[in-house]
Amino acid sequence: MARKKGGKHSQTGTLTRSPLARGRFPRIPEVQGVRLSSVAAGVRYRGRKDVMLAELSPGTTVGGVFTRSKTAAAPVVWCRDRLKSGKARAVLVNAGNANAFTGSEGVSAVATVAEAVAKQVGCRATDVFMASTGVIGEPLPHDRITQALGRLQRGLSGTSWRAAAEAIRTTDTFAKASSAVAHIDGKPYVIAGIAKGSGMIAPDMATMLAFLFTDARLPGDVLQKLTVAANRVSFNAISVDGDTSTSDTVLTFATGKGPRHARITSASDPRLADFKAKLRSVMTDLAQQIVRDGEGASKFVTISVSGAESSRAARAIGLAIANSPLVKTAIAGNDPNWGRIVMAVGKAGEKADRDRLRIDIGDWQITAEGMVRADYDESPVARYMKGSEIDIRVDVGVGRGRFTVWTCDLTRAYVSINADYRS
Amino acid sequence: MARKKGGKHSQTGTLTRSPLARGRFPRIPEVQGVRLSSVAAGVRYRGRKDVMLAELSPGTTVGGVFTRSKTAAAPVVWCRDRLKSGKARAVLVNAGNANAFTGSEGVSAVATVAEAVAKQVGCRATDVFMASTGVIGEPLPHDRITQALGRLQRGLSGTSWRAAAEAIRTTDTFAKASSAVAHIDGKPYVIAGIAKGSGMIAPDMATMLAFLFTDARLPGDVLQKLTVAANRVSFNAISVDGDTSTSDTVLTFATGKGPRHARITSASDPRLADFKAKLRSVMTDLAQQIVRDGEGASKFVTISVSGAESSRAARAIGLAIANSPLVKTAIAGNDPNWGRIVMAVGKAGEKADRDRLRIDIGDWQITAEGMVRADYDESPVARYMKGSEIDIRVDVGVGRGRFTVWTCDLTRAYVSINADYRS
Repeated sequence: MARKKGGKHSQTGTLTRSPLARGRFPRIPEVQGVRLSSVAAGVRYRGRKDVMLAELSPGTTVGGVFTRSKTAAAPVVWCRDRLKSGKARAVLVNAGNANAFTGSEGVSAVATVAEAVAKQVGCRATDVFMASTGVIGEPLPHDRITQALGRLQRGLSGTSWRAAAEAIRTTDTFAKASSAVAHIDGKPYVIAGIAKGSGMIAPDMATMLAFLFTDARLPGDVLQKLTVAANRVSFNAISVDGDTSTSDTVLTFATGKGPRHARITSASDPRLADFKAKLRSVMTDLAQQIVRDGEGASKFVTISVSGAESSRAARAIGLAIANSPLVKTAIAGNDPNWGRIVMAVGKAGEKADRDRLRIDIGDWQITAEGMVRADYDESPVARYMKGSEIDIRVDVGVGRGRFTVWTCDLTRAYVSINADYRS
Repeated sequence: MARKKGGKHSQTGTLTRSPLARGRFPRIPEVQGVRLSSVAAGVRYRGRKDVMLAELSPGTTVGGVFTRSKTAAAPVVWCRDRLKSGKARAVLVNAGNANAFTGSEGVSAVATVAEAVAKQVGCRATDVFMASTGVIGEPLPHDRITQALGRLQRGLSGTSWRAAAEAIRTTDTFAKASSAVAHIDGKPYVIAGIAKGSGMIAPDMATMLAFLFTDARLPGDVLQKLTVAANRVSFNAISVDGDTSTSDTVLTFATGKGPRHARITSASDPRLADFKAKLRSVMTDLAQQIVRDGEGASKFVTISVSGAESSRAARAIGLAIANSPLVKTAIAGNDPNWGRIVMAVGKAGEKADRDRLRIDIGDWQITAEGMVRADYDESPVARYMKGSEIDIRVDVGVGRGRFTVWTCDLTRAYVSINADYRS
């Protein structure tokens, strides 16, 4: 449990892989119209790749969702503005410096990088998206990035997913990627994505970033709607510590370079059913990988809420449980402390029937009719809690709303990582 | 920092006093019309007092505020109903069992205790208030309480503040009390209070309770308004871990047995100015004592927010900072990590001008105009952070709203206490 990562060592990239990580880096297929490249530009780290460029073919559309932080970083502000056109030709990502809380200098640093990328790629600066992750409050050394553009350009290839996923990490202990093939009109389209994050916010604003690419042909406004909908049940359904980064960014790009399919003009087109399901599944996989890399995490926790007034209410209750320090520390201590779950349900402020509240942990039903079951035996549940995959199900007994969130436990290692990281 | 409290030892009451505790138990004067008594009834603990009775003279009025939890405990539901009459003759408090999530049995247990107290005191059951704190989900052994009533009655005295404050503790490492003398029409009135709590919620719902007594003569509706107003800037301005108990209760009682003063009929009567200030000061002192007993706390942190749109917005921003695990762990690590404060301001969702945001820690101004100051030297601030009393001031640059909250840091000891407490 006492996996130690972060600390000063995080600067060198020598992190112990999370015990919750699953398998090796997956095989990610090429996406027609997408070429990737990564280099070590020395933004902050030494001896590791820290800048990633994805070049997108002409005609690529874009959708995106961003942090709701009122102190959003400069690249987030830039991307929000760019999103209006729905078009993209490149996305550049750097790790090591978040370009957040950097005033007007930060704003012009983004424009400088975008213009240099545009010149290299042969497009307008307004078609270049950017994301930055790392320390906050330090000027972005943008010249190190622009000086690396030539090398980035020379390295572009359709297969460099792993290097790209590695380049955007900060304190992540493993590189994150996922893919699926979705069918539209019976024809196959790739959806491929990479992500980074090790906390809804990791040390020093390390941020959650995700970039998804497909060769389907989707108008910008359709792609935007699909992105928002899939994001709601994936990246917006996870929490490591309830904190919100200044830089959280999810961008989806559709190149239209796959097999030709008839024009799609609406997000509710039934031909998109499989594409929606696969986009959601790729984004959920990436989101869960972030939780599995949660700082100090020793357990992966699934919290399914049902019986709420609405799915919105179910989500609020699920996050109240997932974000409760008392619930999270109990899980770290292998304690099936259902009383703290009752507390968190009450704290959420959503309608719940105290006398119909049902709590299950693993295969065990613990409460019935507002009380612990008369025949409740804690021993098998306590044994179950010693595992590393914990399922908690809560029915609040008032309606049909349901939502599932994923989180991890709160360990001494989380405190160590975050208390010792910077000074 | 690694003070260990709680754990199994909490059952025996042998806790190491918090390093943030100030001085000894204060001298609390008598309040005319109030007699107190405490006994060891064996509700859960052995070898310590765990039930407290305050008997109030006829004519006593009452005000109260309670948890907003949707899964509130049975005594909270009882007290809310009783409050409507504005009258009280007794308050009985037990530690060790919260009588929360105990279904209809829990409801009738409160009624049973209230009826027995009423018989003993010679009043109606509806004039008896009750509060319970301790484990959740276990039936209240109400017979142990009712059997102790004779001993409680025999022990009643106007001076037993310390025993009363000790009897209501669960994992508190020190007994909490405060008092002041307020003047109305130039005549002196005592305000005396006791409280318990060691977290907005401590292990297993240990809860925040406070009981205040005065010999001023105030109608129930006036007392209620004064209580709500003082509560807002005292108990509602603290947070240890952001969790909310099922049992949080603040009750104020006015006996009217002090020197005679002319009748007061309105909470806005200018003759109440000093009384309001003193009530607020006693409640703030008690609230701060709770933070100073925060689980695992090694630092007492004052967060003053100004420049917000309203005091409500300032409070939301202050609590977002106070409840951020990343801010709290940074403080534990002596790290003047202002970037995490920027993050928390952004997360609060209240209006803030990123480019006018000013952050001060101790005597040092750290940011100006949306950036860290060019001449910022971290070394003296890092030295300051090693102290145990930390002041953080944030101006968000949009309005005149201000609010101060108090919190503590998040240490490995907090995780240890809460991961290891029950099983």
